[in-house]
Amino acid sequence: MTGEQERREQELTDRVVASFENTPGNPRLKYLMETLVKHVHAFVREVRLTKHEWNAWIDFLTRAGHITDDRRQEVVLMSDILGISMQTIAVNNEAYKDATEATAFGPFFVNDAPLIENGGDISGGAPGEPSWIEGSVRDTEGRPIPIARIEVWEADDEGLYDVQHDDGRVYGRAHLFSDNDGNYSFWGLTPTPYPIPSDGPVEQLLEAVGRSTYRAAHLHFMVSAEGYRTLVTHIFVDGDPQLDRGDSVFGVKDSLIKKFTHHEADEATPNGRALPEGQTWSHVRFDIVLAPGDD
Amino acid sequence: MTGEQERREQELTDRVVASFENTPGNPRLKYLMETLVKHVHAFVREVRLTKHEWNAWIDFLTRAGHITDDRRQEVVLMSDILGISMQTIAVNNEAYKDATEATAFGPFFVNDAPLIENGGDISGGAPGEPSWIEGSVRDTEGRPIPIARIEVWEADDEGLYDVQHDDGRVYGRAHLFSDNDGNYSFWGLTPTPYPIPSDGPVEQLLEAVGRSTYRAAHLHFMVSAEGYRTLVTHIFVDGDPQLDRGDSVFGVKDSLIKKFTHHEADEATPNGRALPEGQTWSHVRFDIVLAPGDD
Repeated sequence: MTGEQERREQELTDRVVASFENTPGNPRLKYLMETLVKHVHAFVREVRLTKHEWNAWIDFLTRAGHITDDRRQEVVLMSDILGISMQTIAVNNEAYKDATEATAFGPFFVNDAPLIENGGDISGGAPGEPSWIEGSVRDTEGRPIPIARIEVWEADDEGLYDVQHDDGRVYGRAHLFSDNDGNYSFWGLTPTPYPIPSDGPVEQLLEAVGRSTYRAAHLHFMVSAEGYRTLVTHIFVDGDPQLDRGDSVFGVKDSLIKKFTHHEADEATPNGRALPEGQTWSHVRFDIVLAPGDD
Repeated sequence: MTGEQERREQELTDRVVASFENTPGNPRLKYLMETLVKHVHAFVREVRLTKHEWNAWIDFLTRAGHITDDRRQEVVLMSDILGISMQTIAVNNEAYKDATEATAFGPFFVNDAPLIENGGDISGGAPGEPSWIEGSVRDTEGRPIPIARIEVWEADDEGLYDVQHDDGRVYGRAHLFSDNDGNYSFWGLTPTPYPIPSDGPVEQLLEAVGRSTYRAAHLHFMVSAEGYRTLVTHIFVDGDPQLDRGDSVFGVKDSLIKKFTHHEADEATPNGRALPEGQTWSHVRFDIVLAPGDD
């Protein structure tokens, strides 16, 4: 590359960065745009992006936008499979002592999920193997946090959330509160791996780069209490073969992989619940530690 | 930031980069994805992107995709106003001796525009002030290039291209060929500045950062000849006040700003064309130099 060529490229980047100079009353937006431009231009220059590749990128984003609707968010999925979502979560949940690690929020949370008591069932009749989930909510000094709000949600054993059916069903989700000793427990389903939607540009990209389109089996938690940083996380299933193939959205952290112990149909359940004849079940313990904070 | 936090963020980036390790049979795609991830993650980490800002970015891309259709390309416009399109053009048109500089292609080129003779009129009845445009096509050694194909297109004096009307009209565009001495000439319109579409997220972003939404007045050229690099460029109008306010897509290069000389209605035209009573006109010279190449 000639010096004149380098000069032209740098001059262009400098000119674009300078165009945000007069951003009115929003220094953060100015800084974000300037920094975004620097990084994106550095990418284009480093890889010597061809016109064909630029066209493919425009086409990818256009198709991702077009396929997105009220029930399907392909742009979020793109952010997820590039690890952008998880990196954003990482910078917004800085490591603090032994506070539980955060992971992806995902597109399937719904407000106003049913309230259950401790020991209740979130499955709402969703098909799958029952799983007894219990643990404590504590601060980083080990003190119990009573009455923490715990939102939980998960897919059924076909890998579908209730909102992915178009009949308005509500299942596989609920909220409950830790008790006065900071403990909680509920019945859910043993999590099942599931693929991302297969009819969009993101799935095509994953195929082209030889990556798995599956998410490792997981159950979502969102835990909040006054004076603590809200924790959005999952637990994963120790032994799930998808953990080795790679979670398509990079949500897995070693500290979030939990042992789901298998139980035969004839073993007594923790709270005496009578399961259907021949129904196996599992149980898992997930002790939650919240960092101090105010969101 | 703690060492543990840095370790977590770097580990995540490394894991996402490694996920492209097994890209089958396409080392260029593998390299592009790895490098894209490094730059995007560096951006998220550097600015400490908040969840709110991430949401705004997802929303912006989603809206850009939704508003894009057969006649409107908001994703390209986004690339344009961030200078990404121009940087891609820069890396694909490396500086070569005194070859004419390239600039944005834009969304308004149409194949199969009418053929005209040298001295003919591309305006097709589009409203605006007539302008006589002439010049030569040469190589970087100064030798004329005969029979080079010259595509030209421009907006009318309301800033609209023919394809932005929905009545199928064809005006303000044509193709012609340089003559045996490498010279060309045609009648067009004196270019007029115009704004980008005002009903999309890109215009909202430009407003938020205090940037002009206008494109500097220009006339498009695409010049091709066997054995030469195809040149996509514009000429701009010396004295256009928009040049100081900034072209919204960063298409302007000093070497492409040309003097459009004003002529009164009673001055004789270069090729004897009779203009309507009282009609002023302009003329401009644009000498084109093509780099060697094969696209």
